[in-house]
Amino acid sequence: MRHLISPLDFSVEELDDLLDLASDIEKNPDKYKEACKGKKIATLFYEPSTRTRLSFEAAMINLGGSVLGFSSADSSSASKGESVSDTIRIISCYADICAMRHPKEGAPLVAASKSSIPVINAGDGGHQHPTQTLTDLMTIRSLKGRLNNLTIGLCGDLKFGRTVHSLINALLRYENISFVLISPPELRVPEYIRENLTKAGAPFKEVTKLEDVMSDLDILYMTRVQKERFFNEEDYIRMKDSYILDKRKMKLAKDDMLVLHPLPRVNEISVEVDDDPRAVYFKQVQYGVYVRMALILTLLEVKI
Amino acid sequence: MRHLISPLDFSVEELDDLLDLASDIEKNPDKYKEACKGKKIATLFYEPSTRTRLSFEAAMINLGGSVLGFSSADSSSASKGESVSDTIRIISCYADICAMRHPKEGAPLVAASKSSIPVINAGDGGHQHPTQTLTDLMTIRSLKGRLNNLTIGLCGDLKFGRTVHSLINALLRYENISFVLISPPELRVPEYIRENLTKAGAPFKEVTKLEDVMSDLDILYMTRVQKERFFNEEDYIRMKDSYILDKRKMKLAKDDMLVLHPLPRVNEISVEVDDDPRAVYFKQVQYGVYVRMALILTLLEVKI
Amino acid sequence: MRHLISPLDFSVEELDDLLDLASDIEKNPDKYKEACKGKKIATLFYEPSTRTRLSFEAAMINLGGSVLGFSSADSSSASKGESVSDTIRIISCYADICAMRHPKEGAPLVAASKSSIPVINAGDGGHQHPTQTLTDLMTIRSLKGRLNNLTIGLCGDLKFGRTVHSLINALLRYENISFVLISPPELRVPEYIRENLTKAGAPFKEVTKLEDVMSDLDILYMTRVQKERFFNEEDYIRMKDSYILDKRKMKLAKDDMLVLHPLPRVNEISVEVDDDPRAVYFKQVQYGVYVRMALILTLLEVKI
Repeated sequence: MRHLISPLDFSVEELDDLLDLASDIEKNPDKYKEACKGKKIATLFYEPSTRTRLSFEAAMINLGGSVLGFSSADSSSASKGESVSDTIRIISCYADICAMRHPKEGAPLVAASKSSIPVINAGDGGHQHPTQTLTDLMTIRSLKGRLNNLTIGLCGDLKFGRTVHSLINALLRYENISFVLISPPELRVPEYIRENLTKAGAPFKEVTKLEDVMSDLDILYMTRVQKERFFNEEDYIRMKDSYILDKRKMKLAKDDMLVLHPLPRVNEISVEVDDDPRAVYFKQVQYGVYVRMALILTLLEVKI
Repeated sequence: MRHLISPLDFSVEELDDLLDLASDIEKNPDKYKEACKGKKIATLFYEPSTRTRLSFEAAMINLGGSVLGFSSADSSSASKGESVSDTIRIISCYADICAMRHPKEGAPLVAASKSSIPVINAGDGGHQHPTQTLTDLMTIRSLKGRLNNLTIGLCGDLKFGRTVHSLINALLRYENISFVLISPPELRVPEYIRENLTKAGAPFKEVTKLEDVMSDLDILYMTRVQKERFFNEEDYIRMKDSYILDKRKMKLAKDDMLVLHPLPRVNEISVEVDDDPRAVYFKQVQYGVYVRMALILTLLEVKI
Repeated sequence: MRHLISPLDFSVEELDDLLDLASDIEKNPDKYKEACKGKKIATLFYEPSTRTRLSFEAAMINLGGSVLGFSSADSSSASKGESVSDTIRIISCYADICAMRHPKEGAPLVAASKSSIPVINAGDGGHQHPTQTLTDLMTIRSLKGRLNNLTIGLCGDLKFGRTVHSLINALLRYENISFVLISPPELRVPEYIRENLTKAGAPFKEVTKLEDVMSDLDILYMTRVQKERFFNEEDYIRMKDSYILDKRKMKLAKDDMLVLHPLPRVNEISVEVDDDPRAVYFKQVQYGVYVRMALILTLLEVKI
């Protein structure tokens, strides 16, 4: 039995298979609409995340399966002191697969070790969020036609943004990717990410102004400056508007550059950009459903 | 693509079709039990409402469809600062139709403008609650056999009660309706409602004592004096018991008068009235399911 | 129409039929997978309980039915002052059966009196939790092959633990059961339970040390010392570790003794015991799903 805890749990080849399956689902949704009939996913969200939770639920329902679970720790037995290990053993009696979001790093890994059903890490603290990474990869591959030979800019909160770290690590496995890291000095990527980049021999530069590099990019990955990552309000306010993408900046970009964003956004992308055909962050949401459908099928070993 | 934001979004003719469909569903539920197979409704409840949310969910399940969503803002991305416009674009990737309740007036309208799926306003602040109005109309039409030639009393909080305002506006489109508005002076209908009544040439009177008009009524529409609409506790306590319907008052009413209530009630209808055959507020709940089923079918353009 | 409010609502014969049905479900789950197609359960949880709620939901989904409901009072109309009697009449329009957990003793009984659908008590305050009792009985019967001729130890908080009281009362109807009640003096079973034991002529003893009786037991029913039952923190801390089951104590037990626990546990069973084949508390969870499936079928009078 397999789990998905880290974005690197799948080899590049396995990932290719998964993305192929997701693409086939996109093209032929009807083929899969009863693929998980009689199966149940448990969505165990110890912290709220509408987008991610509903994406899993939509994915399972699209496959003809059912959903049960909880959307915040308050309405779970966690408030009675139950350990994640115990919860997952109980959930194993109720569902065929589970998606777990937890504020504590490593909780899904602990769960997987005691689980008799596949566990999908749906985000563990500032740590990892592998299905977001799968979504990002599928979006790039579907719309660019490739996952190599790309210059990708990552902009915003690169220090705390787990989706950024995961995406960098995932793309390092592909050939000829250049990274442009755009952030205020206080929010640079952590040292271990710089080490990973150096170790892999991937070209990268760190800059503070989005305008300076805009024209070089094939992909611009914007991120939210998450209020909850800051310890004081002032720092947050000073930072949050620094890296706002607007029409003016979009004019500097290539005609086929793509703007991605893991969402939710606050104001780091001006709504005036939404109608630009290069803005694909809402398409990305749709790809997120396909890739989660493919993931559920893969982990449940359902063959169509 | 159509939405339902205001109770007046449908013409009288369209409303007739909708209510006909709802009546057919009531008579032949089996005919519709797979009508929405493979379809999903998203219930986006930014403030809690068991009755309304579960009515939508029951409606969709009765049609063979599925449900996803959230039941309070706490467990949604709203807490991360996401706009309703962004949320609906995301939800458009997950579901085929959505029902939204929001504390802010106009939020469902904003959502509809950005949505690629039909949006149903399930209540926006003190503003509108069109599916309640549809429910009220269906209840009256089903049990009275008509939507014209009626004397309707509306009692309780007529100032803040959005269901009252919506019902008045909806009934103004039918012939020969007399309105009797029963409330304490502090909770009279707002000026714009009086203007609507006058403009439409509908006979109406405003009174403060329920007993005085009881015998005139074909319909008595009771409403809750909602605690959350008051700014201070004293005002609430003084008011809330003023307009309690009990057995004694029911004796003054016609034999075929109907008592409706949008529910939940607190104590404005004494429980001793529940067994009176003229008390139809629980039947009304059942009609609410049928009418929502008809609405979902209509907005999704499902033909049976 | 029948409800399940108290564990004793079913006669011993009816209980036998129910457990037989549950065992058949365990052996032939496919036979039942469409048994409740088109039917809905409402899970009305006025206080959170992941395990119990999800067990009902899994049960209904396993039978091909659907689920709607709420997982805490905050997201229900209760916060608007609606009575349980009104809520159940509304829910009767939405669902075919309901499971209700409520912090107030007797709430499910009140609901049942006004309901037009079967009501299952899913726990009412410190009072009763009949589906846990059914689960306990099924676990014992399935793994011991009988419900008579047993020595059962009940350990921990015997004063407030409603599952303990219910299980004792349920087992009193079977022959030749000896009870060993293991608790600190402050948490002894209430007087009425002792009276029930005496009246039934069942042999029982009350002890304070688990080690002293370990070797006598066929069943050891462990319970959590629930923090929420205590009025002060100190008492809780002093008590909670008193009755921890560990490997050392397990060595004193018979080879075929079974350890049950209603879960969630905090630390009253050391995790080192989990791998002991006599530790069956996670199997118990699975039996809980089967027995709830059987219960739903029985109350809905579905014949297979």
